[in-house]
Amino acid sequence: MQFDFTFQNYTKIYFGKTALSNLKDELKKYGNTIMLAYGKGSIKKIGLYDELIKIFKEAGKNVVEFSGIMPNPTAAKVREGINLVRENNVDFILAVGGGSTIDCVKAVSMGSANDVDFWEHFYMNYNIPEKKIPFGTLLTMVGTGSEMNGGSVVTNEDVKIKTGVVYPNMMPDFSILNPEYTYSLSKFQMVSGICDMMSHIMEQYFSVSDEDNVSDDLSEALMKNIIRNAYICVENPQDYNARSNIMWDATLALNTLIACSKKGDWEVHNIEHQISAFYDVTHGMGLAAISPSYYRFIMDYGLSKFKKFAINVFNVNPEGKTDKEIGLEGIDKLEEFFKNIGATTKLSELGVTNPEELDKIAETCYVSQGAYKVLTADDIKVILRNSL
Amino acid sequence: MQFDFTFQNYTKIYFGKTALSNLKDELKKYGNTIMLAYGKGSIKKIGLYDELIKIFKEAGKNVVEFSGIMPNPTAAKVREGINLVRENNVDFILAVGGGSTIDCVKAVSMGSANDVDFWEHFYMNYNIPEKKIPFGTLLTMVGTGSEMNGGSVVTNEDVKIKTGVVYPNMMPDFSILNPEYTYSLSKFQMVSGICDMMSHIMEQYFSVSDEDNVSDDLSEALMKNIIRNAYICVENPQDYNARSNIMWDATLALNTLIACSKKGDWEVHNIEHQISAFYDVTHGMGLAAISPSYYRFIMDYGLSKFKKFAINVFNVNPEGKTDKEIGLEGIDKLEEFFKNIGATTKLSELGVTNPEELDKIAETCYVSQGAYKVLTADDIKVILRNSL
Repeated sequence: MQFDFTFQNYTKIYFGKTALSNLKDELKKYGNTIMLAYGKGSIKKIGLYDELIKIFKEAGKNVVEFSGIMPNPTAAKVREGINLVRENNVDFILAVGGGSTIDCVKAVSMGSANDVDFWEHFYMNYNIPEKKIPFGTLLTMVGTGSEMNGGSVVTNEDVKIKTGVVYPNMMPDFSILNPEYTYSLSKFQMVSGICDMMSHIMEQYFSVSDEDNVSDDLSEALMKNIIRNAYICVENPQDYNARSNIMWDATLALNTLIACSKKGDWEVHNIEHQISAFYDVTHGMGLAAISPSYYRFIMDYGLSKFKKFAINVFNVNPEGKTDKEIGLEGIDKLEEFFKNIGATTKLSELGVTNPEELDKIAETCYVSQGAYKVLTADDIKVILRNSL
Repeated sequence: MQFDFTFQNYTKIYFGKTALSNLKDELKKYGNTIMLAYGKGSIKKIGLYDELIKIFKEAGKNVVEFSGIMPNPTAAKVREGINLVRENNVDFILAVGGGSTIDCVKAVSMGSANDVDFWEHFYMNYNIPEKKIPFGTLLTMVGTGSEMNGGSVVTNEDVKIKTGVVYPNMMPDFSILNPEYTYSLSKFQMVSGICDMMSHIMEQYFSVSDEDNVSDDLSEALMKNIIRNAYICVENPQDYNARSNIMWDATLALNTLIACSKKGDWEVHNIEHQISAFYDVTHGMGLAAISPSYYRFIMDYGLSKFKKFAINVFNVNPEGKTDKEIGLEGIDKLEEFFKNIGATTKLSELGVTNPEELDKIAETCYVSQGAYKVLTADDIKVILRNSL
C-alpha cells in the first residue's frame, strides 16, 4: 500500500430477503416528515410503493412524494426536490430506485440543508457540504454503488455538463439491499449495471500504485465474481445467489474500499459523461462501448498491469506470448464478456454517430491526471472513433 | 450471499507514513483530558511516546497515563483503567500498541462509562454497552484486527476464563496505521500476528454459507496476499510495501467485511483462548499449533471447501487426486507455510505438555455451533493431542 490513504464508510447496510423489516426501526431516529423519492413508478408495479406507505403509516410519519426522477437526473429536477424539502420541512429522505434516484437525493440533501445555489456551490466549486438532510436508500437497480458512497452525478442541461462530486459526509445513513427487488429489471438494465460495476473496478485497478497491493487483489476477486455470476444472471435472472453476489459486488466496487492507496483513473467515466451530455445513452452501455478501445489505446503505458489483468481475471494462458499479446488478449476477453452478456460494445449501436459531435465531446471531456496516459483531445477523438 | 446480513463499520482509518499527522485534528473533537494507554514501554524505545506527548501538548490536552497493559489483558488491569478514567474525568482514550492494549481500552471504555460491573455485565451477560468513552488507536503490532472492530478479549485470572465479546458500538472512532511503527517488532511477534490474521480469515471462510459468495472470494484474495507478503516480511522486515500489505490484510481480516453472509466457526480461537487461560501462550502461535490438527479433524464435514482452499489458496494441483487427498494437501501446505515463516506448529514447543491439563482445557472450551462439525469434549481432546 504505497500511497497513504484515509478510509471511512459509515453507511449501514441491511442486506437480504428480510432487509426491509429494518426500515421501521431506522425511521424512529428521524423526525416526522419523510420524503419518498423515486423514479417513474416501477416501484408501484412491484408493490413496493404500497408496502412503504404502510410502513410509514405504522411509524406515524407524514409522507411527501418526490417522483419522476429520470435517468441522468437533471439540475432542474434537483431544484424541484430542494423546494419540496424546504416547503414541507422534510426531516428525512428515502431514495427508492437506482443510482439516478440516489444521486438526485444526495444533491437535494446538500442543496436544501445549506443556503447556497447547489450547482454552483457543490458541483462547480466543490465546497464540502456543511449540513445535510439525513437520507437512506432502498435499492431496486444495481450498478452505480451510490448506496454506499458519497458520490453524486447530476446533469445540467442548460450548460450541457454532466458532472460528479464525491463528499465523504454525503453517504447514505443506511441502505436496504434486497436482491429480489432487482428481479423486475429488464435484461438491458441488469446488464448495463453489470458493465457499470466492472468499469468502476477497472477505473481503480488500472492506475498507480501498481506494486503488489491488497486493493488490486480484492479488485481481481470482485471482477472474477462478477464475470462468473453475470453469466448465471443472464441465463436465469431469478437466481437469488447470483443476483445477491452481483448486488454486493456492485456496492463494494465503489464504496472506496478498493480505492485505498490507488490514484484512480476514471477517464472512461469522464468520456461517457460527456457522451451522455450530448446523447441519451444508458451509462453502463456507454462504458462498455468505450472501455475496450480506451484500454487498447493506453495499454502500452501500463503493460504489466494489463498482462496481470489478462492472466488473473480472464485466465489468459501466457505461454509463448509477448506481454503485449497477453495484454491485448485480456482486453479482447473483456469485450467478449460484454458482448456475451448482451451489452452494446459499439457507440454507433447506441445512436452515437455524428462525427462532428464526437469531436465536440472529445474537446469538452475532463482529462484524468491519474491515468497511465494523460490524454489529449486528439487521443480522445481516436478512442471515440475506435468505439463506433 | 445466502444469509441475510447487516454491515456497518464507522472506524476512520489513517494509513501510511504520514498517518500520525492527523492526530492533532482528531483530538480537537474531544474534551481536554486524554488517557494515553500503552503496554510495557516499547513506545518509549521507538520515540513514539515523546512524539505523542508533544502532540497532546500542542493540542492543549491534559494527559493521564495508563501503562503496563500486558499481553492477554486481565480483568484486574481493566479495573485499574476504569478507576483512572473515573478519578480523572477522562474525555478520550488513545490506545497505543497492539490488540491487547486496544482490547483492554475497549473494556475500560465501556466499563467506565456505564455504572455496572464490567466483567459480569458485558463479558459474562452480553449486555450491549449504552455509553462509551470515545477512543482511538495507534497500532504498533499487527494481527488482531482490533483497530477496526468492536471486539475485545479479556482474561479473568480469578476464574481462569479468557473470553471475547463483540459490540458494534465499541469500534474505535479512528485508528492510525503506520507500517513503519511495526518495524521494531521481534520476528516472533510479527510472525505470531501473521498466524493470527490467517486464522481470523480461515475461521470465517471455513463455515456456511458455502455457495459461490463474495466474502469467500475476498477471503481467498486476502489469504494469498498474506502468504506472498509474509515471506517477504520474514526475509526483510523493513520492506515497507510488504509490511503495509500485511497491516491492511490484518485489518480487513476482522473488520466484519468477510463475515458478511457467513456463519463463522471460531473453534480454533475458542480452543486457543482456553489454552492461554492455563498457559502463557502467545495467541498467534497457539492458533498456528492448533489449526492443522483441527482442520484435519473436521475436513470430511466440509470437504468441498477444503478442496477449494487447497486449489485456490495454495495452488494444489488437483489432477489425479481424490477430493480428500487434495484437501489434506491444502492443510499440509498451510502447516508448511506456518513452519516456513517461523511459527511454532506444536503445542509442546509452547510449553503445553501436561495431559491432564489438556483434558481440563478440552472440557472447558466453548463449543462453536457454526462449525462444520459441532465438537464434543472428546473431539477436542483428540485435536489437542494431535497438536502436541
